[in-house]
Amino acid sequence: MVFGWIDEQAEARRRAGLVRTLRPRPAESPLLDLASNDYLGLARHPEVTEGAAGAARTWGGGATGSRLVTGTTALHGELERELAAFCGFEAALVFSSGYAANLAAVTTLGPHGSLIVSDAGNHASLIDGCRLARGETQVVGHADPEAVRKALDAHEGAAIVVSDTVFSVDGDRAPLAALAAAAREHGAGLVVDDAHGLGVLGDGGRGTAHAAGLAGADDVVVTATLSKSLGSQGGVVLGPARVIDHLVNAARTFIFDTGLAPAAAGAALAALRLLRREPERAARAREVAADLHARLTAAGLEAVRPDAAVVSVRAPSPEQAVRWAADCRSAGLAVGCFRPPSVPDGISRLRLTARADLSGAEIERAVRVIGETRP
Amino acid sequence: MVFGWIDEQAEARRRAGLVRTLRPRPAESPLLDLASNDYLGLARHPEVTEGAAGAARTWGGGATGSRLVTGTTALHGELERELAAFCGFEAALVFSSGYAANLAAVTTLGPHGSLIVSDAGNHASLIDGCRLARGETQVVGHADPEAVRKALDAHEGAAIVVSDTVFSVDGDRAPLAALAAAAREHGAGLVVDDAHGLGVLGDGGRGTAHAAGLAGADDVVVTATLSKSLGSQGGVVLGPARVIDHLVNAARTFIFDTGLAPAAAGAALAALRLLRREPERAARAREVAADLHARLTAAGLEAVRPDAAVVSVRAPSPEQAVRWAADCRSAGLAVGCFRPPSVPDGISRLRLTARADLSGAEIERAVRVIGETRP
Ligand SMILES: Cc1ncc(COP(=O)(O)O)c(C=O)c1O
Ligand SMILES: Cc1ncc(COP(=O)(O)O)c(C=O)c1O
Repeated sequence: MVFGWIDEQAEARRRAGLVRTLRPRPAESPLLDLASNDYLGLARHPEVTEGAAGAARTWGGGATGSRLVTGTTALHGELERELAAFCGFEAALVFSSGYAANLAAVTTLGPHGSLIVSDAGNHASLIDGCRLARGETQVVGHADPEAVRKALDAHEGAAIVVSDTVFSVDGDRAPLAALAAAAREHGAGLVVDDAHGLGVLGDGGRGTAHAAGLAGADDVVVTATLSKSLGSQGGVVLGPARVIDHLVNAARTFIFDTGLAPAAAGAALAALRLLRREPERAARAREVAADLHARLTAAGLEAVRPDAAVVSVRAPSPEQAVRWAADCRSAGLAVGCFRPPSVPDGISRLRLTARADLSGAEIERAVRVIGETRP
Repeated sequence: MVFGWIDEQAEARRRAGLVRTLRPRPAESPLLDLASNDYLGLARHPEVTEGAAGAARTWGGGATGSRLVTGTTALHGELERELAAFCGFEAALVFSSGYAANLAAVTTLGPHGSLIVSDAGNHASLIDGCRLARGETQVVGHADPEAVRKALDAHEGAAIVVSDTVFSVDGDRAPLAALAAAAREHGAGLVVDDAHGLGVLGDGGRGTAHAAGLAGADDVVVTATLSKSLGSQGGVVLGPARVIDHLVNAARTFIFDTGLAPAAAGAALAALRLLRREPERAARAREVAADLHARLTAAGLEAVRPDAAVVSVRAPSPEQAVRWAADCRSAGLAVGCFRPPSVPDGISRLRLTARADLSGAEIERAVRVIGETRP
């Protein structure tokens, strides 16, 4: 039978307890949400949803073509200028997703003959970027600037160092200053994915590169998503204007993809303006994460100290992680559950996300439920 | 200098006249649009923009997480059910873009040890899917079922045949029945991208596979975009439920990507319902294309007979294609301009798209401008 091998894989997943299923949520969920990446609590903010609605009315339901044909509106230009200014970069380019932005950055900046040094804990989209790039990829140990240095030592010619700034699974931060130093020693570029840093880290949420004094440097490129702190959809690449021009001319996920929908651009722009007006949201997300971590640890749970807004809690096994998350859900709490094959190290965990708009009582309730349901 | 090689490439592009620049358009463009992929004229339709606006208000500016965590709303489920029913498939899965849907379909259905037979004219996203897949890709000549047969002959084990249904550059149709026959002889699956067929071909716009009697077959998978006929953003994979379940469990651009924004889902759903109510829009888009072609040919221009809604007109050189498109624009007409490196055959052309809502007078004006500005 055609696609017969699919059934064998499905059976193997069933036996291993690794079947994934979709659980559509209602518009008003009764669950306390510690699973989304809506770090600033902006996805449902009326200014953000009105930003989406207004943009759809003014500009249409879709961009109608590639950004190079009909798909660039004045709204895209506005969003790009404001993102660049906020994050401290010369220029910005917006994509249909953070995934597409990462594919674009790595493939266009890691050409034939170049070396791409990639952290073992990088996000799937960076990994796929490495796979698609014509350059040679060398994967180095997680958060290991010495390994990066060694990989660069062994190569002549153009190179980039590619890393998440905040790793999505455990929420730990990359050693950004050390990575930048290693890259600079070798004349290599630094390409970092700030999906979980934008809106959370740096002055008023300007991001991890800004916090590290790397924003606007001519050898630094930052990618990010509009789908987490900015409560929308889309991705962005920030960097020197000449790099952005290069992407416009060479990035396949830019040239051969329909432009970001106006509603998504409008929502992200509204969220960005709100964050500029209320910069304390960024610090609040970090405080909530720190509070969550302290209380979990006090309750005897093995939680990783958060560098941003993600708090990861170890589970004994994939099966127990799944049951734990399900028990939380039954008790009214939505938490993420990461397990093989979507964790690089094989360790299963609950993944909790702090939101700037969580109250003290909600944090307390979340910790109580997690403690009471622990395997 | 870091990224120094970028400047050399930029200089080479400048010399070759191949620099791409973004031209933001205003909300109310004075140009007659024959460049967008808004084939049914729905992107600005009030029902579609209200679909986007209402969804943003009800569901938020973004999906807030992966479809497997918090990113699946009841709206996504509704859209998937209605898309599957409309196109005649058992199940559907929605992605953040058609690009992401294609990466998902090819990588998950072309596993290690399998053969992927891919048409030389396929879209960049299918090509990138082949590059990312673990299977071995064999590129065959454009629209050549005999070459497909030969490639399959030489392989033992699982295989898929991958093709656009309507090729994006020239708008020509794949020999779908012959491809399906070749695939079936060999027990191979057929994976076709109906980005330019959905909404235009088949009964009431049900798509190319439906027209060919292939919809719902257990060896056929169709991908499409929500960004062309449906006037929104996003992508979809349609197929047997077991294939869709496999994608949910294995597709990296599904698992590691934020769910499609509610506004995009809402706009696409509104467009789909409108098309079901007004099925004549599909035939009208085809009529406009045929009319456009007939008039261009009568004016002595070298246009490819359209199989769907794309009409391609040959230009003598990349430089002349660019100037021709610019002259059209100066005369109030927006047309697409495809040239190296984004055309597989090196031939530059104007790319015109028919829209169901173009009037006879608009078609006449477009043909007049194209004729008067010809190089
Ligand atoms: C670190 C990281 N990079 C990139 C992405 C992809 O962004 P998007 O969902 O906008 O495609 C994600 C998550 O979705 C992520 O966690
Ligand atoms: C044939 C084809 N497939 C896929 C895509 C990608 O779809 P999307 O723009 O939704 O990513 C396009 C154009 O954008 C296309 O022309």
